[in-house]
Amino acid sequence: MRGVIMHAPRDVRVEDRDDPTIEQPTDAVIRVSAACICGSDLWPYRGDDPVRRPQPMGHEYVGVVEAIGDDVSEVSVGDFVVGSFFASDNTCEICRDGYQSHCVNRVPMGALGTQAERLRVPLADGTLVVVPGSPTESQIRSLLAASDVLGTGWFAAVAAHAGPGKTVAVVGDGAVGLLGVVAARQLGAERIIAMSRHADRQQLARRFGATDIVEERGADGVARIKELTDGLGAHSVIEAVGTQESMMQAIRSTRPGGHVGYVGVSHDVELPGGELFGSGVHLHGGPAPVRQYLPELIELIMAGTIDPGAVFDLVLPLEDAAEGYRAMDERRATKVLLTP
Amino acid sequence: MRGVIMHAPRDVRVEDRDDPTIEQPTDAVIRVSAACICGSDLWPYRGDDPVRRPQPMGHEYVGVVEAIGDDVSEVSVGDFVVGSFFASDNTCEICRDGYQSHCVNRVPMGALGTQAERLRVPLADGTLVVVPGSPTESQIRSLLAASDVLGTGWFAAVAAHAGPGKTVAVVGDGAVGLLGVVAARQLGAERIIAMSRHADRQQLARRFGATDIVEERGADGVARIKELTDGLGAHSVIEAVGTQESMMQAIRSTRPGGHVGYVGVSHDVELPGGELFGSGVHLHGGPAPVRQYLPELIELIMAGTIDPGAVFDLVLPLEDAAEGYRAMDERRATKVLLTP
Repeated sequence: MRGVIMHAPRDVRVEDRDDPTIEQPTDAVIRVSAACICGSDLWPYRGDDPVRRPQPMGHEYVGVVEAIGDDVSEVSVGDFVVGSFFASDNTCEICRDGYQSHCVNRVPMGALGTQAERLRVPLADGTLVVVPGSPTESQIRSLLAASDVLGTGWFAAVAAHAGPGKTVAVVGDGAVGLLGVVAARQLGAERIIAMSRHADRQQLARRFGATDIVEERGADGVARIKELTDGLGAHSVIEAVGTQESMMQAIRSTRPGGHVGYVGVSHDVELPGGELFGSGVHLHGGPAPVRQYLPELIELIMAGTIDPGAVFDLVLPLEDAAEGYRAMDERRATKVLLTP
Repeated sequence: MRGVIMHAPRDVRVEDRDDPTIEQPTDAVIRVSAACICGSDLWPYRGDDPVRRPQPMGHEYVGVVEAIGDDVSEVSVGDFVVGSFFASDNTCEICRDGYQSHCVNRVPMGALGTQAERLRVPLADGTLVVVPGSPTESQIRSLLAASDVLGTGWFAAVAAHAGPGKTVAVVGDGAVGLLGVVAARQLGAERIIAMSRHADRQQLARRFGATDIVEERGADGVARIKELTDGLGAHSVIEAVGTQESMMQAIRSTRPGGHVGYVGVSHDVELPGGELFGSGVHLHGGPAPVRQYLPELIELIMAGTIDPGAVFDLVLPLEDAAEGYRAMDERRATKVLLTP
């Protein structure tokens, strides 16, 4: 089969890879209907994360089950399924508490590489969620978003306690931040402030439910959020970047007793203990337990209530993956969908 | 009147100070029945916080109202009252959300100095809570504990989501940590692990409800907590020290999705963003909104349900405050009560 391999920063190739097979009785093999490029794939692409050896890429996927192991009972050949970026057993104590991304038996899907024609999914019963019926092309886009960026934005909004009566600020206008806006709106937030200086992303944020746009960043951005909230700060802040500046912007934009939901993968971040202590905020985040939210997200998508697939602004055949990486790196695209 | 002044590290004197008066119509003046020395008072005493000029000391207090300003209506002359270490209006949006220690009009009581015969309490209506009847000497001790260390331990336990079915670990065996054990027990925790290597404090922790004692610290302490919790970590961890080691010990002792309640005043702490991201824990803390809990704590104390006053293991007249500081610095006492 064909699949994406990163050989070095900025060296992405589509190559022949061995077809995946059932290795464990709990595995499934799926034919990938759509995969995509994640903001976090840009870290190694830009050389900010090491690329020690040629590595398969991608951790987002939807597809059709082609084979299942002997112990798989919850999914069947032919099912259209969505999974997340960690395979999880969904039965351990951590999974039962809703933290499947920290499952004691978790397997990172990024190591298997979902930007490919086929994919082995470990712990299939715990990992995959079946979509009822046959999704349309538009629904497939949205279901693919649920696989990571929507699920991650959703978790951030939940971690930030977005809800009725709340003012939510969103730091980061990438796909996760934009879908954090969708989540905050669905959760009933009263006011949603998107922090963005890109006209196209501002427009999408408004379409998704943002009520205000703040273009300023850093200290100026914080000051603007304070201005909009009687000097107190937002109740809920979604952090979807992962840098020192964005984390501090998020913490400083939150009122005492408010909640920061942070999902941007941390890079060289050091949180000053004294300032954090003085802030009185709640801090929660990390790799999102997307699996927890998948059933609900699939329902919202199939009912047409939300349209998270709108974040994909470039669709390319898998063979053109390198161009997809370039487009995202150069910010010509917010989120690239690849069709094998 | 007489009051404690710190002139420099290790230079604590009891001196004549001006009697406080009503300065604002929202003030009250109280005769201090009991005050005490806080673990945080040791930071300047040890030279870890600067002492730039002679400063009045103390921020914990209970006493009897002697005078009230024209706008005070909730407390009357003669009332026995408890307040916390921040005066707060208890009416602003932050107070109404239960974060009185971040009140937009807050006044730090430490700047006024409660280790004295009399005390001006700003924002008296919002700050002071009246104790019904006339408390006994033993109840006065416990009410004084409510003023800070109990209220702070309580907040830490709430922030750590201590409750039924939960395993709670407590990092720090000072008065706050020990009273965090009391709080965790009252909140219904199933198992409470006190981390302490001092026999007397271990004994008090057990009396307060600890079910397990862990003597190890740092990585060994974390390993021991993991051993006791099926390799997962505690659900809830109370951090009551404020150093880099204690914060990391708390975070690493918590399972993914679990809660760290941190109330040790941070000193030179830098939290590594990547590790925090990967941990999946909830982090909440800072200066405790003790005012929120005072009515409930007073009720529990007056009913004899809890006996937090047991943390005071040395009682001295105010005139001997310097000896009290020495005793706490040398760990001869856990918590020193001063009687003016």
